[in-house]
Amino acid sequence: MWTNWLTGCNDKANTVFGTRNGDGVTVLDTLFGGVAMIELKPIGIIRTPFTEPQGMPIQPAGADGVKGTIEVFADYRAGLKDLEGFSHIVVLYHFHRSNGYKLQVVPFLDTQPRGLFSTRAPRRPNPIGLSVVQLDAVVDGILHVSTIDILDETPLIDIKPYVPAFDAPEATRIGWLDTLEKNVSQKRSDRRFLRD
Amino acid sequence: MWTNWLTGCNDKANTVFGTRNGDGVTVLDTLFGGVAMIELKPIGIIRTPFTEPQGMPIQPAGADGVKGTIEVFADYRAGLKDLEGFSHIVVLYHFHRSNGYKLQVVPFLDTQPRGLFSTRAPRRPNPIGLSVVQLDAVVDGILHVSTIDILDETPLIDIKPYVPAFDAPEATRIGWLDTLEKNVSQKRSDRRFLRD
Repeated sequence: MWTNWLTGCNDKANTVFGTRNGDGVTVLDTLFGGVAMIELKPIGIIRTPFTEPQGMPIQPAGADGVKGTIEVFADYRAGLKDLEGFSHIVVLYHFHRSNGYKLQVVPFLDTQPRGLFSTRAPRRPNPIGLSVVQLDAVVDGILHVSTIDILDETPLIDIKPYVPAFDAPEATRIGWLDTLEKNVSQKRSDRRFLRD
Repeated sequence: MWTNWLTGCNDKANTVFGTRNGDGVTVLDTLFGGVAMIELKPIGIIRTPFTEPQGMPIQPAGADGVKGTIEVFADYRAGLKDLEGFSHIVVLYHFHRSNGYKLQVVPFLDTQPRGLFSTRAPRRPNPIGLSVVQLDAVVDGILHVSTIDILDETPLIDIKPYVPAFDAPEATRIGWLDTLEKNVSQKRSDRRFLRD
């Protein structure tokens, strides 16, 4: 398999990178000394009015009424059946404009450094974004959504149905956001998490 | 760079695979004819009582009181600062026991095929799982959590603070789950999404 893979033979490449079982990871293990990587592939693209990070809302709460579309690639559209029945969906996507990460960051909503994992900052060890958005319609593999806080041309990773019984427990504490959360609808992003 | 990468030189490997900017993707583009991959690396490991998928709860709603730990690798622990202030966290993880995917599946909660993206089934084009769990304590880089529905030894991808204003909109429709959701706390998984 090596020879074929190293020469870029496509079917072998798919064997190594295209499957979702352990094989690709095992091969990378061998190559890079015990670092088990996980391979994701974009399954669509997200279109929104936000072509630049500067000035966009930092959460759906700040994107009330903002409309966008999620274009699922043709190969995956059969998986959209039954999705229209849900008023909201969980969208996972790649923070494709984010670069590297720091373990302490000053969030858009705060003025002092916080631990990265206590924030939603895009520069993360694994730059995967999560937004719960309103699903208005599904037409020919294109999801029409509202209250979307995602950058235009963001690669789509996954769509899950939003189910309050699964996803919306009663939170009793929201940490450093406690006094700041109310500002989220006014707050806009800047360039702090972009490539330098 | 090629020669070094193909011979497995670690620092070059990091250049290609370890960064979170576009470089790795660009290289894979070249290699595999336009398939832009996204590379993730486990940042920790999740420990739960569920060593086998069979019989485990299928959502946190069915895992009331079940306790587990999330061991964040030492390199990332500085990012856990301030997390203790949150009663719940969003956990992203790799469905490491899942194999391939089908675009129509019969969910644990149903008896007929549904579109994959209208389900939470683990066999997905990008096998990333999402659970909102209760955070009880953070001790030496280990998160003690409750109401966890995740398989033991699952690779951790990301941790985000759970903030109702961001993550818990008022859902008006939950599609095919409408009449079935009430069963989730009793329902247990089986082997249908495992490797054959």
